[in-house]
Amino acid sequence: MAAAEFWYEFASTYSYPAAMRVAALAGARGVALEWRPFLLGPIFAAQGWRDSPFNLYRNKGRYMWRDLERITAAAGLPFRRPERFPQNSLLAARVAVALDGEARPEFTRGVFAAEFGEGLSIADRERIAALVAAIGLDPDAVLADAESDANKARLKDQCARAAELGIFGAPSLVTGDGELFWGDDRLEQGLDWAAKHSGSTAKP
Amino acid sequence: MAAAEFWYEFASTYSYPAAMRVAALAGARGVALEWRPFLLGPIFAAQGWRDSPFNLYRNKGRYMWRDLERITAAAGLPFRRPERFPQNSLLAARVAVALDGEARPEFTRGVFAAEFGEGLSIADRERIAALVAAIGLDPDAVLADAESDANKARLKDQCARAAELGIFGAPSLVTGDGELFWGDDRLEQGLDWAAKHSGSTAKP
Repeated sequence: MAAAEFWYEFASTYSYPAAMRVAALAGARGVALEWRPFLLGPIFAAQGWRDSPFNLYRNKGRYMWRDLERITAAAGLPFRRPERFPQNSLLAARVAVALDGEARPEFTRGVFAAEFGEGLSIADRERIAALVAAIGLDPDAVLADAESDANKARLKDQCARAAELGIFGAPSLVTGDGELFWGDDRLEQGLDWAAKHSGSTAKP
Repeated sequence: MAAAEFWYEFASTYSYPAAMRVAALAGARGVALEWRPFLLGPIFAAQGWRDSPFNLYRNKGRYMWRDLERITAAAGLPFRRPERFPQNSLLAARVAVALDGEARPEFTRGVFAAEFGEGLSIADRERIAALVAAIGLDPDAVLADAESDANKARLKDQCARAAELGIFGAPSLVTGDGELFWGDDRLEQGLDWAAKHSGSTAKP
């Protein structure tokens, strides 16, 4: 079956519409999706950025917020700009990595909807606990698991793998045959590619 | 009538497919297009870049070349990566600014086809002269006009206006009501916007 990895960062603005749209787009094309939360911070730091490029480059940042407003309006998604950007996404990423199956995308959508749909803080421990509870899981158990050494290591490995794949931004889509597509605006193209090239020799 | 400004830089890779596609896309939507060549160099320099970000950020650059390969293949455009990137686009930009009417887009498409379709140098004076001759104009007269003080000032003014508009990359589309759309992948969206909002109070 055709497959693709969906790489996203909870602090990333364009990951919001992508996370809300990607499951339906993949389903329509028969593409099985792996949800891969990761952290962009180490990748940005490696190229000398200590802040989001949208803060470092003012015109690009101004454009991004307006673009996101237009994109979410066109997709029928609520949008509210959080006071702080980028947010600390470490706890959210650890929780997402700790969750399996459908719980991961469900939690992911909940976090993005809170962050960019309602403009809320996701660095907040109580908020993350509430978002875990909202998908029917026990927040204490999930948070304990998320902050275990084993799970912290899983997230670190995931970030190292993102760097190995040449990922430099979020969201990114990696197809079964190793093609990289960057950006919410490449989801359709990337998933079309994944569907079309599923017959090729897939990586194990 | 609906209108939009198409801002492009001859050294910019994504300006190539955009320049080849934009006239048909605008025509289909009844949008009148102003072709606006400019230089990204001063804008990049103002934010501390002394080279293309695709050279400064290696993974981003590697991605861009592969992405461009896929985009041109999908659009049925020839693609050959030039040996040198970015190229000195000053003379090409001066010539484009000096040309009026249909001569400007015709020359523009000729330059991009040579640069990224055939992988040729566009910094070369003889090549630019040949591209002027190819659209039926006298190269000596056009180059003299292009390098006059008045025309150099026109290009400088154009670059200053790009910065005023908040343009930070190429290609960019600016609609009659002042919306900015960045990237070859925003052409359709930007032109749709221009067509839809043509009835609004346009700027003089």
